[in-house]
Amino acid sequence: MKKKAMIQWFEQGSIAIPKLLMMQYRKLGLNELEFMIILHIHTFLECGNAFPTPNEIAGRMTITPAQAMEVIRSLMQRGFVTIEGNRKQEALMSEVYSLQPLWEKMLQLLMQENMEQEQERTEQAHI
Amino acid sequence: MKKKAMIQWFEQGSIAIPKLLMMQYRKLGLNELEFMIILHIHTFLECGNAFPTPNEIAGRMTITPAQAMEVIRSLMQRGFVTIEGNRKQEALMSEVYSLQPLWEKMLQLLMQENMEQEQERTEQAHI
Amino acid sequence: MKKKAMIQWFEQGSIAIPKLLMMQYRKLGLNELEFMIILHIHTFLECGNAFPTPNEIAGRMTITPAQAMEVIRSLMQRGFVTIEGNRKQEALMSEVYSLQPLWEKMLQLLMQENMEQEQERTEQAHI
Amino acid sequence: MKKKAMIQWFEQGSIAIPKLLMMQYRKLGLNELEFMIILHIHTFLECGNAFPTPNEIAGRMTITPAQAMEVIRSLMQRGFVTIEGNRKQEALMSEVYSLQPLWEKMLQLLMQENMEQEQERTEQAHI
Repeated sequence: MKKKAMIQWFEQGSIAIPKLLMMQYRKLGLNELEFMIILHIHTFLECGNAFPTPNEIAGRMTITPAQAMEVIRSLMQRGFVTIEGNRKQEALMSEVYSLQPLWEKMLQLLMQENMEQEQERTEQAHI
Repeated sequence: MKKKAMIQWFEQGSIAIPKLLMMQYRKLGLNELEFMIILHIHTFLECGNAFPTPNEIAGRMTITPAQAMEVIRSLMQRGFVTIEGNRKQEALMSEVYSLQPLWEKMLQLLMQENMEQEQERTEQAHI
Repeated sequence: MKKKAMIQWFEQGSIAIPKLLMMQYRKLGLNELEFMIILHIHTFLECGNAFPTPNEIAGRMTITPAQAMEVIRSLMQRGFVTIEGNRKQEALMSEVYSLQPLWEKMLQLLMQENMEQEQERTEQAHI
Repeated sequence: MKKKAMIQWFEQGSIAIPKLLMMQYRKLGLNELEFMIILHIHTFLECGNAFPTPNEIAGRMTITPAQAMEVIRSLMQRGFVTIEGNRKQEALMSEVYSLQPLWEKMLQLLMQENMEQEQERTEQAHI
């Protein structure tokens, strides 16, 4: 019995979260609830469900579908998440969530921090 | 500049979260804030800091160190996290967080669900 | 340009490999080429292609499709990989690779090692 | 017993490999054995051993330490891996492997492919 449960666990696999995102989501302006919604969307995407409903997302959380909807809307307005059209088969068009804007924001933050560090170094060299 | 930022990102690497944990933490009795604290502890562990302070944890979050402390204490009382002594070098003893109790709870939940599914199948076979 | 390339990278995500598997595949009787074939099958599975052809697998490797075929056959004969029928939609039946036997072997190895360690401890206690 | 083995597995965690690297290492000029050596170095780094010996690396593989040494030397000559000095504590200097050159090569390849795709699109638009 135990063995079966365990095998199941491994079969499911894992999602990977960049350590830098864990360390910096706060600086991007995200709070914990928003970050968790993003993780859930990411997990659904990785499992092949590219457009989970607020019901599906809230079903794995301790919030209501209405609250999930609210957070998703806010994430979209603030440019962390977008909805894209995905041409699956001829003529058929389906919508999918994309986390591309989040990666862009993360990249921007990293570049900015690198620039500031270099400026500091330059300034110190001039003293 | 961009290149440097990107390389940095990859060097840092990722943490892996079992998909089943993402899907089931709610059934384990964890809310989103508690789950995030666990993820932060996990990230610190993976980065070689085995006993992050409430200050360090809260420093990556949108909560205060006091709130972080509170949640950690509750997670320990409810048996999700423990503190273990870790004999590093002779005589030297250091404390480390362990998420072992969480994995045990997760395993227990999986086994229970498997059992219930089998019972259902048996009952249906008898009808 | 760089930014686009980078975003692409993140969008693709990562596959997670249990560290214990990296440390112990050798003890399971796998060599590096066999392990790589398993990683490729795992990657295809994670990307939604549950039954990659030897051509597709070899296309990402420095071996020929015939060699890939050979290794896959050997992995199946020795009980590391199986092919399962997967009922996708009514009446439609498709084949999928499963790495379940690998996880079982890994689990077995771990249990055996734990048992041997405990036996050693018991024996030492009796001396 | 089983439970203990399983918990151990989870405690160890996973390493994350970018899917794009799995798909493209061949285009970077790496063969399977070389890629595996890189994965082993990566795993050692993630586990806190920043400068594993050829003996340690080969100990997890089906090759000899001499062969491991050979491959590592070749990877360094061809610019996939470097050794860096790491100032740990005052005056103390230790050597560490860095996979930074690999990430740079990967990034370069991605940018080049993006450029070629855009060129193709431009050329098609002109026909």
